[in-house]
Amino acid sequence: MRILSSDIAVHVGERIRVEGWLHKKRLMGGMTFINIRDRKGVVQIIVKDKAEIEKLRGLQIGTILVAIGDAVAEPRAPGAAELHNASLEVLVPITAEPPIEIDKPLSHRPDNLDTLFEYRPIGLRNLQETAIFKVQSAIARAMRDYFYQQEFTEIRTPKLLAAATEGGAEVFKIDYFGREATLAQSPQFYKQIMVGVFERVFEIAPVYRAEPSATTRHMTEYISIDGEMGFITIDDLKQFLSGLLNYVSEQLWRHHQADMDALRAAQPLLSKEIPSISMAEIHEKYSQANEQSTVGEKDLRPDEERWICEYAAKELGSEAVFVTDWPAEEMKFYHKAQAQNPEFADRFDLLFRGVEIATGSMRENDYNVVVAQLQQKAGGDPNDPGFRPLLQAMQAGMPPHGGFGMGLERVTQKFVGLSNVKEASLFPRDINRLAP
Amino acid sequence: MRILSSDIAVHVGERIRVEGWLHKKRLMGGMTFINIRDRKGVVQIIVKDKAEIEKLRGLQIGTILVAIGDAVAEPRAPGAAELHNASLEVLVPITAEPPIEIDKPLSHRPDNLDTLFEYRPIGLRNLQETAIFKVQSAIARAMRDYFYQQEFTEIRTPKLLAAATEGGAEVFKIDYFGREATLAQSPQFYKQIMVGVFERVFEIAPVYRAEPSATTRHMTEYISIDGEMGFITIDDLKQFLSGLLNYVSEQLWRHHQADMDALRAAQPLLSKEIPSISMAEIHEKYSQANEQSTVGEKDLRPDEERWICEYAAKELGSEAVFVTDWPAEEMKFYHKAQAQNPEFADRFDLLFRGVEIATGSMRENDYNVVVAQLQQKAGGDPNDPGFRPLLQAMQAGMPPHGGFGMGLERVTQKFVGLSNVKEASLFPRDINRLAP
Repeated sequence: MRILSSDIAVHVGERIRVEGWLHKKRLMGGMTFINIRDRKGVVQIIVKDKAEIEKLRGLQIGTILVAIGDAVAEPRAPGAAELHNASLEVLVPITAEPPIEIDKPLSHRPDNLDTLFEYRPIGLRNLQETAIFKVQSAIARAMRDYFYQQEFTEIRTPKLLAAATEGGAEVFKIDYFGREATLAQSPQFYKQIMVGVFERVFEIAPVYRAEPSATTRHMTEYISIDGEMGFITIDDLKQFLSGLLNYVSEQLWRHHQADMDALRAAQPLLSKEIPSISMAEIHEKYSQANEQSTVGEKDLRPDEERWICEYAAKELGSEAVFVTDWPAEEMKFYHKAQAQNPEFADRFDLLFRGVEIATGSMRENDYNVVVAQLQQKAGGDPNDPGFRPLLQAMQAGMPPHGGFGMGLERVTQKFVGLSNVKEASLFPRDINRLAP
Repeated sequence: MRILSSDIAVHVGERIRVEGWLHKKRLMGGMTFINIRDRKGVVQIIVKDKAEIEKLRGLQIGTILVAIGDAVAEPRAPGAAELHNASLEVLVPITAEPPIEIDKPLSHRPDNLDTLFEYRPIGLRNLQETAIFKVQSAIARAMRDYFYQQEFTEIRTPKLLAAATEGGAEVFKIDYFGREATLAQSPQFYKQIMVGVFERVFEIAPVYRAEPSATTRHMTEYISIDGEMGFITIDDLKQFLSGLLNYVSEQLWRHHQADMDALRAAQPLLSKEIPSISMAEIHEKYSQANEQSTVGEKDLRPDEERWICEYAAKELGSEAVFVTDWPAEEMKFYHKAQAQNPEFADRFDLLFRGVEIATGSMRENDYNVVVAQLQQKAGGDPNDPGFRPLLQAMQAGMPPHGGFGMGLERVTQKFVGLSNVKEASLFPRDINRLAP
């Protein structure tokens, strides 16, 4: 029976069988030390027998091995145990030298990213890379748990659309049996429609943006975490997101401490209720503290986003902050203006460690107002097949509702501490990259 | 505080507040009976006061209401309680009559499907439709639980690809900044690559097929459940799938009995180990029992798929069956032939209630053999950017591995008992349908 690397210590004193990839090999004083990697980590194995050592001659990292040996306690070995007196069987001999090293951390320097991505199928076997994506899997899992706890239903909405409805320019076009179709940039209208059905819905799925430049913040394909809730106010939405981010952080450091440590990731400072600061206040504070004035601007500068997160960490005990009171004139047609101050949209951005990780807002739920806003703001036609389904739902009755969209890779990036969002994508896509 | 429909009975004797959609309205002897729908179901409310009844005049199904009333036990009401002496507040008045009825089951007759899909944003509010997609959400959730229990890591692989690698014809083409890109038909190569990293991986995500005909079995976009495992044999793979299907069935009837009952779905007969029958044996049995001979054919006819499932239910106590021993000459380049009988592929189809819901196989893990099979079978070029990443992984060492792909909508269809797979998609896509 195969024993996994994580369980070796349990079998000390027994002769056991492990299987995996040759991950490291070094000769020391007539002995060969090898590491075998499996899905749980690595096992250290000491091979002394000449005939066994001979089997490894000319074999490279990646060779698939079976090792049978005596499990021995060894505090300095990974898992606090190792195998002695090992006999080896080569299942798949690998003789080609890997184009990159995988037994020590790969460089994430900007000038090495192309190499990193080019050899992704091999480089991901590096334990440092593996840890990033174990964490990503854990983040998505924790988020789904939280959605379920809060009685959300998971939905799956189409990514093939008839027409470009939102943000026309950055849309990919498909040849759909001779017609033109587009790829969804967001499940926005569908998740609103589904509030009419399930009241609380979420989706975690790819979205597509024809972003024509290669930046450290954008990809052409990314995983969007979308939530939408009915019968709520913007405060409920903020409370939900505060809970969500706190829950993810707790789960990561409770169940994935070893990965977080390996990645040298520090648990973020997060208050139970993430603080809110209005855009005007941020402009003011930033302008006081820095040499340039941003007072009166209608958006935040990237440097302001970084600065306000540092400010919030120091002054408010939270590395995340909601930016509120966005100018209504900038809002999308499906957004709602604030009831008390209609010059502001009922919207926020959630900044985390210097970057926007989510945008949320209340949606206009009055059919007539939505139609008017569509015509005024977007110059849109209510009979456009892209808008019709949303308007159909509005006409059939929609409660006060709101929601948010969040990028899984950005959240991963910020929890782990990566400088480019693409490092948090297994196989990133941008204007220059469609492979591997 | 808002009380949800599921909790009314707990509050009998109290005056409580409910919020939701007007779902049904009928006048009886000077009283008005209304149902309000929320995310948990419906509440029955009796309105006697003339002024309150007046508020409902001219209002249609879908109107957003707040009702405050006395919770009273009533065994015949949904949830065994109802509200009396209700006072109403209209949050969003709906005056347009809905284009379809939503308070009684919608027709799923083939000649009504276009209407069903056309009014999807409203029709999904029908409790019968809602139940289908609550079940679908539960199926995906149960599957993920099972994957996690078996130590799989969730991955997210790109749907934007450089080249059409597999099954060339049925591929959608995208304009990617002036270049041609394609949409993924399957995460096949990526999930194999990721076995080299995590050993056991799964993905639940959309895939795209440019299927040029409208059938009851196919869509152009569907949710593919993909699993891939290293260091296993085909028997391990079958055992995994047997466990998975049994687990989903148990979870559905344990936690979603009410939905399954509402859908009149019968729990399937499933043996702990789903039985295997070779294709040749099926041809033989079918030919003996029916008037036509299929002996020697290289695939199963749709009628044979139905027949063998009925046979297995009757004779083997399982409505699911693995079809084994597929001719090697039909296999894909990444498939492995059986070690003992190389004229057969090491592959199976999983049939469930008359339809193929999954295909699984062992993959060839020897780099040189894969390259040879690619050139011979697919006429493919190992330097094609579509194949290179998989071959890169092979060259760096891949263990014996195998996996399967499964359609979420088909699994939903078969558990629920729907005749067209599109009925199990919120917003189905086929050659004729890109909206809503």
